[in-house]
Amino acid sequence: MASAEAATVTNKQIIFPDYVRGFPKESNFKLTTTTIDLQLPEGSTSVLVKNLYLSCDPYMRICMGKPEPLSSSLVPPYETGVPIVGLGVSKVIDSGHPDYKKGDLLWGLVGWEEYSVITLTLYSHFKIHHTDVPLSYYTGLLGMPGMTAYAGFYEVCSPKKGETVFVSAASGAVGQLVGQFAKLMGCYVVGSAGSKEKKKFGFNDAFNYKEEKDLSAALKRCFPEGIDIYFENVGGKMLDAVLINMKLHGRVAVCGMISQYNLEDPEGVHNLPTILYKRIQIQGFGVCDFYDKYPKFLDFVLPHIREGRITYVEDIAEGFESGPSCLLGLFEGKNVGNQLFVVARE
Amino acid sequence: MASAEAATVTNKQIIFPDYVRGFPKESNFKLTTTTIDLQLPEGSTSVLVKNLYLSCDPYMRICMGKPEPLSSSLVPPYETGVPIVGLGVSKVIDSGHPDYKKGDLLWGLVGWEEYSVITLTLYSHFKIHHTDVPLSYYTGLLGMPGMTAYAGFYEVCSPKKGETVFVSAASGAVGQLVGQFAKLMGCYVVGSAGSKEKKKFGFNDAFNYKEEKDLSAALKRCFPEGIDIYFENVGGKMLDAVLINMKLHGRVAVCGMISQYNLEDPEGVHNLPTILYKRIQIQGFGVCDFYDKYPKFLDFVLPHIREGRITYVEDIAEGFESGPSCLLGLFEGKNVGNQLFVVARE
Repeated sequence: MASAEAATVTNKQIIFPDYVRGFPKESNFKLTTTTIDLQLPEGSTSVLVKNLYLSCDPYMRICMGKPEPLSSSLVPPYETGVPIVGLGVSKVIDSGHPDYKKGDLLWGLVGWEEYSVITLTLYSHFKIHHTDVPLSYYTGLLGMPGMTAYAGFYEVCSPKKGETVFVSAASGAVGQLVGQFAKLMGCYVVGSAGSKEKKKFGFNDAFNYKEEKDLSAALKRCFPEGIDIYFENVGGKMLDAVLINMKLHGRVAVCGMISQYNLEDPEGVHNLPTILYKRIQIQGFGVCDFYDKYPKFLDFVLPHIREGRITYVEDIAEGFESGPSCLLGLFEGKNVGNQLFVVARE
Repeated sequence: MASAEAATVTNKQIIFPDYVRGFPKESNFKLTTTTIDLQLPEGSTSVLVKNLYLSCDPYMRICMGKPEPLSSSLVPPYETGVPIVGLGVSKVIDSGHPDYKKGDLLWGLVGWEEYSVITLTLYSHFKIHHTDVPLSYYTGLLGMPGMTAYAGFYEVCSPKKGETVFVSAASGAVGQLVGQFAKLMGCYVVGSAGSKEKKKFGFNDAFNYKEEKDLSAALKRCFPEGIDIYFENVGGKMLDAVLINMKLHGRVAVCGMISQYNLEDPEGVHNLPTILYKRIQIQGFGVCDFYDKYPKFLDFVLPHIREGRITYVEDIAEGFESGPSCLLGLFEGKNVGNQLFVVARE
């Protein structure tokens, strides 16, 4: 319902000027300020929100590339000249939609701007019912990355107690959770990440891939008997090294390949005959195919959080303007934990 | 039981002198003649057979490489200085094993020699009960390649009526059957092979990969809407071209990668991010994991053969000495149909 206390306010936005080739730069983002009426027009079925937390996720680089049918099967490419679209936690200011009223909290796809008018479609947005946990978690642990880790590990990897699990990008929004889920199941877990301070996260072991001359040797050191499950977030050379360290009937869940997104041509991976020799399964997946399980995921994960069995590391930047540098940092492996930035606290 | 009519006869053998690097050559095989007693020693539990048909299969190249833990997970490496081991159809001459008696026919692993003494282990050999079909079929359609096609297509590919199926090495022992199984299920089937005379096999379409400058363009021509199922027999450049032509949720069953077996370092495959974008499953498999289904396979396939719904093309060479050139021909794509050679007709 439209409210009587409408007002026009300024609305800062981060615009996506044009498609990106190679590594994205600060110039691929354009800060602008416009205005927005804080009241929806009569008869609207949209929801007007104030964005509180906005999330930086690796998949966003795929959306920044020139639209082409391959990658578009996973994520829609960005439109140029309008704000970047990402996941965020937002508060409802006005609503023409029967499921939402002023003051409700939600998470889902919003523009990189202070206020967004959103159109609800299936699984585009989820109402937030549990606020005894940090609200920012809905950009990570309790949002898309959490659901990705949950579906990817339990549904795609077919894990069993006692198996060996390797997670790359292990300090990222998804990787740190996969490792913890695997630990909860009684697996032996090793993670790789891009800096020393990222070590452990409660895993059995970890290594900094930037310090290893020979990734395969690092994996052999961590897994002398081989790897049952590889949760793939990076692709390229790491995948090549993992393949020859897989055990018979090993499984690879392909969640992301962040090392490849900025390359004009993806790197060649050589050890694919191992798929045959070790009878390995490689499964690409997208969280979009699993959102029907989101309520089940919350039932599973909330007690673990409340009782301290799962922790979550966030890399929180302050201020709307920090968005671009946060996103760029992902591709240099700068973040420790889920990368987000605060637009407003309430 | 040991028979009274024992005799010592000559036994021609093809010896494997040493491990092979790169493309195998005639010099990687050594013809020799020894003698064998056609009576097993008292108390033996082995079976002495006369080899009738011997089979040339791509996996044998893997056995010829220097033993290393990766490939050894699929097939045992050859021992040097003793006969090549392959699949064959053989007649029992003498038996110390309760399951076999003189005159029985079997198929399974034997030496490349006129007579072999075999030790039975689980699924190493299968007794032949149906002789109203060509006996040579037990090196192909009714043997390991047939079982491979059956398990690979029905168990690994999860096929559905109306799906599009691409088979490489489509005129080989396995490929020609996969295509026919897919046709029986109501799939649209295209095969690739290495010569013009290999075209069709009752598929919807086919192409000669040697005549195509751009494999991806050839696949796009054959599958304008993309590929649901790829039955992978060759690897390398073909796999790269297939990946970018896969449909969403496509499946790749990795049965072999013949193009890679003779290379010191396997080729790089670049289009792996497609696994993520299209949420593709790639599954390596070995027939060794499926032999418990062999009786079920026979029940399925024998009526199809007898009623003419499945045909099988064989490339049969005459004479024991033709073995090496037949095997070498596989790696040049010379064979049309299942490659075997005749040691003796009975």
